[in-house]
Amino acid sequence: MNKNAANATSVAVANSTKLGKSGMGMLVIFDDPVTKDRNLHSPPVAKANGFYFYDTKDTNDAWFAYTLVFNSSEHKGSINIMGADLVGEKTRDLSVVGGTGDFFLTRGIATFQTDAVEGAKYFRIKMDIKLDYVCHWLTKQD
Amino acid sequence: MNKNAANATSVAVANSTKLGKSGMGMLVIFDDPVTKDRNLHSPPVAKANGFYFYDTKDTNDAWFAYTLVFNSSEHKGSINIMGADLVGEKTRDLSVVGGTGDFFLTRGIATFQTDAVEGAKYFRIKMDIKLDYVCHWLTKQD
Amino acid sequence: MNKNAANATSVAVANSTKLGKSGMGMLVIFDDPVTKDRNLHSPPVAKANGFYFYDTKDTNDAWFAYTLVFNSSEHKGSINIMGADLVGEKTRDLSVVGGTGDFFLTRGIATFQTDAVEGAKYFRIKMDIKLDYVCHWLTKQD
Repeated sequence: MNKNAANATSVAVANSTKLGKSGMGMLVIFDDPVTKDRNLHSPPVAKANGFYFYDTKDTNDAWFAYTLVFNSSEHKGSINIMGADLVGEKTRDLSVVGGTGDFFLTRGIATFQTDAVEGAKYFRIKMDIKLDYVCHWLTKQD
Repeated sequence: MNKNAANATSVAVANSTKLGKSGMGMLVIFDDPVTKDRNLHSPPVAKANGFYFYDTKDTNDAWFAYTLVFNSSEHKGSINIMGADLVGEKTRDLSVVGGTGDFFLTRGIATFQTDAVEGAKYFRIKMDIKLDYVCHWLTKQD
Repeated sequence: MNKNAANATSVAVANSTKLGKSGMGMLVIFDDPVTKDRNLHSPPVAKANGFYFYDTKDTNDAWFAYTLVFNSSEHKGSINIMGADLVGEKTRDLSVVGGTGDFFLTRGIATFQTDAVEGAKYFRIKMDIKLDYVCHWLTKQD
């Protein structure tokens, strides 16, 4: 990965183990741009900071916890997300467990869909975020 | 642990450090079956994917973040949990911070009780999950 | 760090990598006292158990997930927190995603403010916790 340090936006801090054949135990910390479309070079609308690890022996299932950080004229604040990414499913739901700023106290679902995998060094995930404003609204009324 | 790879469902990605005598710093990623009773060989109702680490110098207290993944005729979806496991207490409460599928937007408490410890390689935890359906209901009405 | 094991309350389980110059990839597990004022030797009102890691190449931004554990005559229970710590900002908001005991099902915001940095071995963060009691109240009424 060091050969590509200028473009790299993630780093493995623990290597995969010899348990099983799917990289169980590999833990990756990332700081990735989030764009509105599929082009890596589109202006980012947010960045995603957090980590994931592969957690099964037989599949490439992973577990994520991360923050979407917004700092644009459109949105300021953050959305916190955690959950299992069962890559065998076409879509996978993770939990939006909280938010700050424009996303104060939000909750919801982040739906993952694998959009591109280019070998072991790059993959792109399509995230659909559905937020719940009910508890949010109640909070504001109080 | 490699000697037991076929049965192993967890893997340590960072070894315990020399700080203190209780394994502080050991981080374990797991993919464990969840059964309704105490028998490891009962049909699993869910699997638990996530990680924990030991975080104190003098005790075996740990910190967990994980997802219960349900994929049966009874339940489909996931429950996301995080919190401290203060093993010195008879029962310890962790937070259910979100859910998906049948457990859409759920919150609640997961109560841990140590059920069996067999040396360093195996332990079993009894989890009582109490979910809160109030915000859930509000969400559906909106 | 071993030279200071008696006072140390945190331990790095993964060292910083060669990617970038800001320690990206360093992951630290901590068990820190929380005091009401700035004095490390004041009686702790809680302890903070969890981890953080540095997640960017160019800054010292970090990502935290941890539990505040209260066990005093004043408060018993825990508060679970996660989110990004963008250290370039004067204040940064993380999400309170759940609670137990006296803080049953609470949500809210934890605002970080760097209070002191003394080299790489010690820093102190001021945390302002604002909790939301609305969903809490609804839960109790049901």
